Amino acid sequence: MNMQKARERARALVGQMTVEEKISQLLYNSPAIERLGIREYNWWNEASHGVARSGMATVFPHAIALASTFDPDLIGTVGDAVSTEARAKYNKSVEWGDRDIYKGLTYWTPNINIFRDPRWGRGQETFGEDPFLTAQMGMRYVRGLQGTGEFLKASACSKHFAVHSGPEPLRHTFDAVVSAHDLWETYLPAFEWTVKAGVSGVMGAYNRLYGYPCCAMPLIKDVLRGKWGFDGYFVSDCGAINDIWANHHFTETIEGAAAAALKAGCQLNCGDAFRHLVEAYEQDLITEEEITDAAVQLYSIRVLLGEFEEHRPWADVPLSKLDCREHRDLNLKAAREAMVLLKNDGFLPLDPKTAKTIAVIGPNAMNQVALEGNYNGMASEYVTPVEGMRRVFPNAEIRAAKGSNIWREKQCDWGGFANMRSEGVAYAKEADLTVLVLGLDCTIEGEENGTRNEYFNDGDKVTLKLPKTQIDLAEEICDVCRDVVVILMAGSAIDLGEKITSKAHAIIDAWYPGAQGGLAVAELLAGVYSPSGRLPVTFYRADDELPAFTDYAMEGRTYRYLRTEPLWPFGYGLSYTAFAYSGESLDAECDSAYRVSVRVKNTGDRAGQEKVQIYAQYTDSRTPTPNFQLCGLAAADLDAGEEKTVTLDIPKYWVSAVLEDGTRCAPDGSVVLWIGGHQPDERSAALTGTGCRKLVIR
Amino acid sequence: MNMQKARERARALVGQMTVEEKISQLLYNSPAIERLGIREYNWWNEASHGVARSGMATVFPHAIALASTFDPDLIGTVGDAVSTEARAKYNKSVEWGDRDIYKGLTYWTPNINIFRDPRWGRGQETFGEDPFLTAQMGMRYVRGLQGTGEFLKASACSKHFAVHSGPEPLRHTFDAVVSAHDLWETYLPAFEWTVKAGVSGVMGAYNRLYGYPCCAMPLIKDVLRGKWGFDGYFVSDCGAINDIWANHHFTETIEGAAAAALKAGCQLNCGDAFRHLVEAYEQDLITEEEITDAAVQLYSIRVLLGEFEEHRPWADVPLSKLDCREHRDLNLKAAREAMVLLKNDGFLPLDPKTAKTIAVIGPNAMNQVALEGNYNGMASEYVTPVEGMRRVFPNAEIRAAKGSNIWREKQCDWGGFANMRSEGVAYAKEADLTVLVLGLDCTIEGEENGTRNEYFNDGDKVTLKLPKTQIDLAEEICDVCRDVVVILMAGSAIDLGEKITSKAHAIIDAWYPGAQGGLAVAELLAGVYSPSGRLPVTFYRADDELPAFTDYAMEGRTYRYLRTEPLWPFGYGLSYTAFAYSGESLDAECDSAYRVSVRVKNTGDRAGQEKVQIYAQYTDSRTPTPNFQLCGLAAADLDAGEEKTVTLDIPKYWVSAVLEDGTRCAPDGSVVLWIGGHQPDERSAALTGTGCRKLVIR
Repeated sequence: MNMQKARERARALVGQMTVEEKISQLLYNSPAIERLGIREYNWWNEASHGVARSGMATVFPHAIALASTFDPDLIGTVGDAVSTEARAKYNKSVEWGDRDIYKGLTYWTPNINIFRDPRWGRGQETFGEDPFLTAQMGMRYVRGLQGTGEFLKASACSKHFAVHSGPEPLRHTFDAVVSAHDLWETYLPAFEWTVKAGVSGVMGAYNRLYGYPCCAMPLIKDVLRGKWGFDGYFVSDCGAINDIWANHHFTETIEGAAAAALKAGCQLNCGDAFRHLVEAYEQDLITEEEITDAAVQLYSIRVLLGEFEEHRPWADVPLSKLDCREHRDLNLKAAREAMVLLKNDGFLPLDPKTAKTIAVIGPNAMNQVALEGNYNGMASEYVTPVEGMRRVFPNAEIRAAKGSNIWREKQCDWGGFANMRSEGVAYAKEADLTVLVLGLDCTIEGEENGTRNEYFNDGDKVTLKLPKTQIDLAEEICDVCRDVVVILMAGSAIDLGEKITSKAHAIIDAWYPGAQGGLAVAELLAGVYSPSGRLPVTFYRADDELPAFTDYAMEGRTYRYLRTEPLWPFGYGLSYTAFAYSGESLDAECDSAYRVSVRVKNTGDRAGQEKVQIYAQYTDSRTPTPNFQLCGLAAADLDAGEEKTVTLDIPKYWVSAVLEDGTRCAPDGSVVLWIGGHQPDERSAALTGTGCRKLVIR
Repeated sequence: MNMQKARERARALVGQMTVEEKISQLLYNSPAIERLGIREYNWWNEASHGVARSGMATVFPHAIALASTFDPDLIGTVGDAVSTEARAKYNKSVEWGDRDIYKGLTYWTPNINIFRDPRWGRGQETFGEDPFLTAQMGMRYVRGLQGTGEFLKASACSKHFAVHSGPEPLRHTFDAVVSAHDLWETYLPAFEWTVKAGVSGVMGAYNRLYGYPCCAMPLIKDVLRGKWGFDGYFVSDCGAINDIWANHHFTETIEGAAAAALKAGCQLNCGDAFRHLVEAYEQDLITEEEITDAAVQLYSIRVLLGEFEEHRPWADVPLSKLDCREHRDLNLKAAREAMVLLKNDGFLPLDPKTAKTIAVIGPNAMNQVALEGNYNGMASEYVTPVEGMRRVFPNAEIRAAKGSNIWREKQCDWGGFANMRSEGVAYAKEADLTVLVLGLDCTIEGEENGTRNEYFNDGDKVTLKLPKTQIDLAEEICDVCRDVVVILMAGSAIDLGEKITSKAHAIIDAWYPGAQGGLAVAELLAGVYSPSGRLPVTFYRADDELPAFTDYAMEGRTYRYLRTEPLWPFGYGLSYTAFAYSGESLDAECDSAYRVSVRVKNTGDRAGQEKVQIYAQYTDSRTPTPNFQLCGLAAADLDAGEEKTVTLDIPKYWVSAVLEDGTRCAPDGSVVLWIGGHQPDERSAALTGTGCRKLVIR
């Protein structure tokens, strides 16, 4: 079954429908057409990091944490596990006749928007700030979800096309202004590469781009379908077609908005604006052929998912796959790889045998919500940092306290919870070691959520600073405790402040690490494994380093355009062991790629995983040159003393210059590849104590 | 330090204050008076089942569950543990200068209102429907909290004086109408006995009684202080003094309301109406002496708590007492004793060694909130039923699913969680055994909370029935599974319906069982211990058996006045072993009590705990005779085959007749004591298969 065959079957099905029936099928909650034996189908489903919002599932680390593994192979395996659970659920839903929302096989995942500004609340759903990393992770996750067989194991959907990354409060009215250079160099590549990977859906964003609402813009037909040859379905973000007239005022009527979206190439409406395609058709705003084409496209996907097969593919995947032991082990592996050790003065790893009293303090010490992130499922077992510490340090006395809320000084005066700082500090003072578990959770960092205060604006952060209640707790603990380790759980870069950063022996960014996250945290402290996570975003030094949040220009943003020294650079993360690189060489070159190899040796005294990173640096007279661009990635497991050769194909796409008009072409000057465990900048070299190898290509 | 000495010191302190300063001290958030070296003090604290709302603490089973232990000794031990944690917290709060809300030693606990109607949302905070049980548990909890030494270990407060049990939506406007007979027989005794036990505070209710707002009624001076000799402080419920004028329209102004409360004997205001005592004083509505007396009363309590001692009592109780191992063990013991085995067809106990796949399904299977109840603290470890099953059945495959929300069919269509029923049913169908964990939690059953729908009205239940989403899940599971066991977690009697009740092999009422509750549930299933909990409330057959919720008459309510056969009677609960009674005798009689003894034998083949219950039945020509009245209680631990003599003093108070005018006196007819493991009614005898022993007193 390929797309062409699927389209033929779809055309035969759709050919029997009336215009009204066809229109009804362009809504996410498509009703049954009983006379044709067609069942209702709800297109809306989510699986950002595990099957979401539909009961039990393995809750993997959130997307930003999956990105921080810097391990595309792992993400592919996770995607495959997710779609196995998706099929297990689907089999049961079909058996029970449950065709409700979040019960279908069309997942509106991954979110491959570029996390260009650390204040965006939905950055946690993305793979970070870099086009290459996002494209790699997106492709592998898409392939994992969809499989590579005759049928789609599940349908993935790249979102939100084409330029979308906050601010949340403005998303229904905002017009993103972006240069052609930034558009083609930064915002579009991950879409292009996931299309290359065969993604079967693309979702249009809420906002406008160059004045056009994203679900009614020429880019859909010109670029997505035309230039890139996308042959899947295009869906509006939820309510986005209504926004076209109600908020963007791009059309005067709702039927006009529906018609504009359909004509632009949007085939499915999450929302109900497409009901008005009936009037649009009556008013000759659209043709029956346009309606038919959209329906055929959608039915092609349903055919490819096997809905209409007598012997449905993957029908034998049992319910016992949900959050099963095998997936939980994979989840723990992913959580381990996601942990980024940002600082370690040698204090870590701890010896679990000699640990005494350990206070685990902070709003995320026992917070299940912080394990989950947003767009999450429900696991059958959650291991918080406190629970993880109990398991991994059985000989220690583990004392837990919340110490503060995430941002509220008090929950409320009447009937709420009191200020808990004095208790947290007291616990810490009496312990031999304090593990501070700070950060945010999706009750405040997330998607358009209505909360507005000095720290949060509708899901976005107003500042990189941790809320004062946490800073006060942590600083007071730093005053009274000798030994402090900080665990940060958040979906974005956070500014801990100078005092905490300098006092803590070690700082670990755990992101929103999934249901097994607390175990991975504790195991990292105990040295059960050596950390290998790498930052998929830059940690800026302070708020005032940031351009305006509404500014979509890349200048001054992300490692590729940053002119100042960041606190912790993109690609950075410490290990308990050390790695040395040698023997870098260009092995081969073809039209599309360079084949590069390098020898990596674990020079430390314990096993560890290295994340080999290759950055391209070029000169080109015709374009603003970025600092450098990540263009190759590989994870290498190495025992103490072990050496391996790592060979990577670097697509020339990622070593190309993007001109001011957006054209991508070979650089007209020099090309150098930097190979190592981090960025080739001074800050990274200083932090890790190692440099990168330089491979001159031309 | 006794009350008289305390009052002298208080008088000396208050004597130095201006009128305005004295008035300021009558507010719950009393400000500092620096020139006198007096610190601010916030009177509001809670400890219904562990120190609440103030960070880490042992979260014991909720009050209704503590009552269902039918074990007054245990409740005394729990109270002592709670005040130990209270002192540990207080010591640190003082050290850190934290004198905020929920940081003082004046606990507004216990709630000894009679749970006369199962729909009341706050029934979970009470000790059930019976005056004797409530009085016993209240007295022992008060003594546990306060200690019996020179100083008060903590200050307890009986609430809400005098007649208060919903409906929640009417509490600020309602006038409770109750006969003198019911008032004195049912509503007042627990207050009288906790006063006898030395409770140092009493809180007035929101509603009116006989037309008087409870914080401004003559009953305070006439009965509480006059007849009973209460010498502690009287506090308004929070905002109740404002209600006097704003909602009850009992006075025309707020200063009038404040004056009315003060003059009636209310000395402390939770709220801020007492600020207007300044105007009331200026308008000569109150005298300085009245203000002084109130302030002296309050300072007496602060003196008795040791606030002004150079060497503060209990200053050496360390923070490590909070949720410590010893208290966690006690918590588990309390949770075990609280479990009421309502039905068992012989299926329980299970053999943990032979268990295979067990599905644990339902909205409370993994719901921490249902462990907590309301007015709760934060534990450092929560064991849900799923987690408990994993620990106790290590050889079984434990499969968990939520299966439904508590009452919502879906969380919401957009962005919420889908209907989970098909998944729950599928899990259950594939398991060898399904443990259904149903019930409510405090997000919907509780205090005035604004939620109104077909099941809940502002914290109260509209119906005894489980919400449809749970019934649908459970009934569908009953259809497809051979073996089902039901765990009910709620703060009140729930109607599971005929189908579920008859299908389930066993039904366990776990109430809101505290942080270790899930472990106690699993251990009960595995037969680690034999259940001994007893119902502190009647389980009616259906909604239509209930009088109107607003009707405070006892006729037709609770075991003492029920004319129909209940589903499960007050005092009822099954065991894994059996007990036989013999040799009952009246050993002695004095003016105030009968001394009764009985031999109890464990006739089964495993150790177990019996809850010996003694009920008084009398005839009296002058009064409506209740069915019978619980008047004696004891817990007896017995090994298989073991026999013990249990001796109890039965206060004649509980064997007395209450005349229509409320006078309590000796019955003019016969007096019989029934002794056994349950009520002496036919239903109880039929359910347990054993009768009670009859001891004719006269």
